[in-house]
Amino acid sequence: MINTMAEALSKEQVEQEISGLQGWNYENDKLTKEFSFKDFREAITFITRLAFEAEEQVHHPEIYNVYNNVRISLSTHDADDKVTEKDIQLAQTIESLYN
Amino acid sequence: MINTMAEALSKEQVEQEISGLQGWNYENDKLTKEFSFKDFREAITFITRLAFEAEEQVHHPEIYNVYNNVRISLSTHDADDKVTEKDIQLAQTIESLYN
Repeated sequence: MINTMAEALSKEQVEQEISGLQGWNYENDKLTKEFSFKDFREAITFITRLAFEAEEQVHHPEIYNVYNNVRISLSTHDADDKVTEKDIQLAQTIESLYN
Repeated sequence: MINTMAEALSKEQVEQEISGLQGWNYENDKLTKEFSFKDFREAITFITRLAFEAEEQVHHPEIYNVYNNVRISLSTHDADDKVTEKDIQLAQTIESLYN
């Protein structure tokens, strides 16, 4: 049952891993980013696109949407809701969708 | 610019209006309900379906999703983020999608 993907990363590891990612913050044991779009349709389109990737990675973010804004928070339930490589990987995927 | 749809309802009015709606709570000047689904796909499907209705009504909820759970909060920006008839109407529509 041991899966190296679900091991919590240290604060230093997380900060190193996200150093190449624009706008992601590490706080309260989560990786979080606020995304802004032209309008509601664009925000929902982003959420839908992201949902397919989340399913593929079998890893699901917290998603909070108000009109044209989307806040994504990532942590790993199987690692006591701490940040693991799974979160880094999903963050990278989300970035590739946004850019 | 006056629109009767955007007038804040009193607490009594809101409570009367939602008395026929299952599971909606009125707190912190918002109408809120937690929805639960079989899995993430079903939750995202609900959000997507709801998004079309929100666009049609030109009224957009706060949407919070974690895996199979979706929390919807409704208030009206143009009425100082208080609950108006627009929120009641969208809540009724959301109920019809869920049931």
